[in-house]
Amino acid sequence: MTNNLLKNISNPEDLRKLNPEQLPQLAKELRDFIIDIVSTKEGHLGASLGVVELTIALHYLFDTPNDLLVWDVGHQAYGHKILTGRKDIFHTNRQLGGIAGFPSRKESEFDAFGVGHSSTSISAALGMAIASNIKGATEKHHIAVIGDASIASGMAFEALNHAGVSKANLLIILNDNAIGIDPSVGALKEYLTKVKTDKRLAVQNNIIKALNFDYSGPIDGHDLPKILSELERLKDVKGPKFLHVITTKGKGLQQAEEDQVTYHAPGKFDKISGERLKIAKSLYTKYQDVFGQTVVELAAKNKNIVGITPAMLTGGSLKFMLEKYPKRTFDVGIAEQHAVTLAAGMATQGLVPFCNIYSTFLQRAYDQVIHDVALQNLPVIFCLDRAGLVGEDGATHHGVFDLAYLRLIPNLIVFAPRNEIELRNILYTAQLGLKNPIAIRYPRGTGTIIDWKKPFEKIEIGKGVCLQEGNKTAILSIGTIAKNVSEALELMDNSSNFSHYDMRFVKPLDENLLHQILKKYTTIFTVEDGTIKGGFGSAILEFASQNNYQHKIKILGIPDAFIEHGSVLKLQQKLGLDAHSLSEAFKL
Amino acid sequence: MTNNLLKNISNPEDLRKLNPEQLPQLAKELRDFIIDIVSTKEGHLGASLGVVELTIALHYLFDTPNDLLVWDVGHQAYGHKILTGRKDIFHTNRQLGGIAGFPSRKESEFDAFGVGHSSTSISAALGMAIASNIKGATEKHHIAVIGDASIASGMAFEALNHAGVSKANLLIILNDNAIGIDPSVGALKEYLTKVKTDKRLAVQNNIIKALNFDYSGPIDGHDLPKILSELERLKDVKGPKFLHVITTKGKGLQQAEEDQVTYHAPGKFDKISGERLKIAKSLYTKYQDVFGQTVVELAAKNKNIVGITPAMLTGGSLKFMLEKYPKRTFDVGIAEQHAVTLAAGMATQGLVPFCNIYSTFLQRAYDQVIHDVALQNLPVIFCLDRAGLVGEDGATHHGVFDLAYLRLIPNLIVFAPRNEIELRNILYTAQLGLKNPIAIRYPRGTGTIIDWKKPFEKIEIGKGVCLQEGNKTAILSIGTIAKNVSEALELMDNSSNFSHYDMRFVKPLDENLLHQILKKYTTIFTVEDGTIKGGFGSAILEFASQNNYQHKIKILGIPDAFIEHGSVLKLQQKLGLDAHSLSEAFKL
Repeated sequence: MTNNLLKNISNPEDLRKLNPEQLPQLAKELRDFIIDIVSTKEGHLGASLGVVELTIALHYLFDTPNDLLVWDVGHQAYGHKILTGRKDIFHTNRQLGGIAGFPSRKESEFDAFGVGHSSTSISAALGMAIASNIKGATEKHHIAVIGDASIASGMAFEALNHAGVSKANLLIILNDNAIGIDPSVGALKEYLTKVKTDKRLAVQNNIIKALNFDYSGPIDGHDLPKILSELERLKDVKGPKFLHVITTKGKGLQQAEEDQVTYHAPGKFDKISGERLKIAKSLYTKYQDVFGQTVVELAAKNKNIVGITPAMLTGGSLKFMLEKYPKRTFDVGIAEQHAVTLAAGMATQGLVPFCNIYSTFLQRAYDQVIHDVALQNLPVIFCLDRAGLVGEDGATHHGVFDLAYLRLIPNLIVFAPRNEIELRNILYTAQLGLKNPIAIRYPRGTGTIIDWKKPFEKIEIGKGVCLQEGNKTAILSIGTIAKNVSEALELMDNSSNFSHYDMRFVKPLDENLLHQILKKYTTIFTVEDGTIKGGFGSAILEFASQNNYQHKIKILGIPDAFIEHGSVLKLQQKLGLDAHSLSEAFKL
Repeated sequence: MTNNLLKNISNPEDLRKLNPEQLPQLAKELRDFIIDIVSTKEGHLGASLGVVELTIALHYLFDTPNDLLVWDVGHQAYGHKILTGRKDIFHTNRQLGGIAGFPSRKESEFDAFGVGHSSTSISAALGMAIASNIKGATEKHHIAVIGDASIASGMAFEALNHAGVSKANLLIILNDNAIGIDPSVGALKEYLTKVKTDKRLAVQNNIIKALNFDYSGPIDGHDLPKILSELERLKDVKGPKFLHVITTKGKGLQQAEEDQVTYHAPGKFDKISGERLKIAKSLYTKYQDVFGQTVVELAAKNKNIVGITPAMLTGGSLKFMLEKYPKRTFDVGIAEQHAVTLAAGMATQGLVPFCNIYSTFLQRAYDQVIHDVALQNLPVIFCLDRAGLVGEDGATHHGVFDLAYLRLIPNLIVFAPRNEIELRNILYTAQLGLKNPIAIRYPRGTGTIIDWKKPFEKIEIGKGVCLQEGNKTAILSIGTIAKNVSEALELMDNSSNFSHYDMRFVKPLDENLLHQILKKYTTIFTVEDGTIKGGFGSAILEFASQNNYQHKIKILGIPDAFIEHGSVLKLQQKLGLDAHSLSEAFKL
């Protein structure tokens, strides 16, 4: 039987009834369970396989949930979820109404801190540890498990710098597998590699020791007896301590170990062979690839173009440029702040930086966009992937705030392409010598145009377009949600009453077009896949107010709430942004 | 003559005509010049005095502005400004229409990168250095001068981590004076102190060397021959290199050396004795002190209260709490990201964190507010100082975006007190067991109420107040700009036509009150000291749109542009937000 220990374990109390000798067998079962479910239900795979032994050891030795365990990023926490009461619903992972793909305080008392974005765990666990000191709970343990890609992010360094001078009972476990989603980069990573191969560095005054931590390791993260004995020892060490654990991402599934980038989140696969299931190749291209391929084309002609990504080479498809122009392509690691100001520095010297960041992660570099780029009006080209609803990654990852938080920044142009061709053309336009920075935001997933690779055409900055001319009501949309609007109009009997405009630019607004629209129509709908508060619709309201139009303007978009995980279509239906819901809304 | 070398120096070319032996004399003159002007015109003092020798040496040896010099933060760049063409206008420093208090690309080609917020210099200079590599300008030098407080910020670490694996011709100079505005903190600072006292650490594999830098130092930053020879040597070292320089903040003025916190920006002082001029003590209390004193009062009763500041103990007045409750007060260094998530971690354990950050610096922790605090709905209390126009610090420091970028965040309460009593009472209210995070934003400078220390009163969340009842037009204001509105109404003949409401909460809006207002008045003005785009007025427009009111609503606030330096009053006049301008606007 492959599953005879795990079946009796619902929570860590059950786990703690096992003998230490049984734990390797449990590790095997837990690994099989993860593979079994993820192979059919999809999700993050490699990271969780890598920490199976560590997960078991932590819950076995520590008194969770009283002891507080924070997983950094959290896509490695599947084993944790399975061992803490969610085994029977683990198959609902990432589905609407199901459990989240990341730890979530709402979901379980074992999830001490909600995560999704990287490098927060040390700060959070340190906050908990200091709280325990203040409350006299001096026996409580506080543990942050963080990967080597995440620990190189600035925020993690800030937390280390503080923790090192605290008296907090904090254990940081570095899960060192030399890879984030793409292989880790940077000087710290090189240093950690040296530590692994040169044991003298481990014992002498290394970086971590220099920051006042009790450093131990590196140890083999798949050797349960070794992990158990080291954690047991560390339970009695007071103050900030640091355990360096070496693991293999994808451990236990050969393909996942060999192709760690692909098996980060491989989609469906054969659980025995590990082979990924062949799915019919989509007729359509992902937006990220439209970006990635177009930038390569542009870089061939414009030698000043450089590409920058904070650790999203594959996810953002800047890998295409890296392959072709390695000297002009920079993966700076999980370092959004640095990525943006690096781009600003490059722009001062006449380079044309394409700074490729997920919309939700640009929140990490908000000040740099304002203070280093926009204030100096440096023509950095922000290419914001995963804008709007992203689906199964859920609340931490939806890129729904960007239109609102970007449009308030002076000097910045904010554009959202309606389709692949528009994306392609704005990328072309942006590198022709724009005088301002520009943010181009586009969604996860594919578009709808097969033959998008057309000759480049320049887009006039601040110009919207009319997609359909009607006579009663104007619908103003921004970005790819135009498609839902078009489909909604097709569903309606009286669609000829409606005009549909793609405004394209949230900033600068097409004021001429808006005057025309507001003179012609008294009822206006705005549609966006961004937050209603402060977003595109709000910009239209401001324009109308400023120009003394007193119209009925109805804003449709993401409501003022954090949106859960689920497929984009289901979420749109829930939020009234799918074609059918929109057609109903337009009737009112 | 104290000024016989400096008077002949307008720019670095003049400087380079001197013999090295003359430079110490020039240093003395430059120091005197800075003291002379700052003693009467005010500004930042200590930081610039500390780098006089370094400034001279850099411009003497390097080919500025072709070689690129980036000052971190930039309040230490007065000497740099004086030596690079701005000696004769240095007395206009920080005044409206005068030179800026920080380096600015608009102002001079010698200011390679605009600064103000800390820790950007390495990223920017690295971007420049990489650009030079790409463009084949391999002889160009790129220099970042960064303090020991700034280098501990996460962003700087991200840049070090990248620079260490670059082939960039980058020189980082650590200006180590063991102090930012307040004394530096953290494990890195302790480590740097050890390096200074234990020379073996300097030569062995220290933190900086571990990150792949050619490390040299520490050297005495006031010893010109030593600096010159070391910089001369480094000119020939290719790749990333790091010079550790020890300086004394305030060097050359005894009081400034002895009381470095006060003489960071001492106001007017006697240039000979160094004594600060006695100014008539204001009748009024600074908002920061209303915050600082009130938190101490509250902390006495509520043992769960903790205070957190990212390196603004003095500027934000959390020093009062540190004095009284050192174990519950945390200066985490220049680490806004960590500060916010630390607060979130503390809040999970039932502590009540008052997280005290300048409005403009909260931009550095935007993602943490969204992802770590608001998404989990943790009741962190953000106390945002220096909101609105801050005056002489200028474009980098105005806190004018906060209302707009905060109100789009779900779960977050956004409040702006009209006066000291309101600030006091919302601080009281916030720690009574709020279920949501709250952002409380208040301005730089003093209020208008002498006797503000009244018994606490609870403020009902989401309730606005009517300050004046009129019959024709409603004015809705938020925050302390209410005072300008009141004064504007006093200037008007027909002020009885106007109602004035302080809405207090940008979020949640007082919907009942708004319905009353919109039913009674058809003309509405909104007034805020924040950006018009997406701000408070925009929230009122959204409410009206959502509830089908078609009113004339006119928004008054900060226009869509970066606002320069100058006194708050002069800036308000320029922007139409002073009492007189408002009274004119209300007539329309």
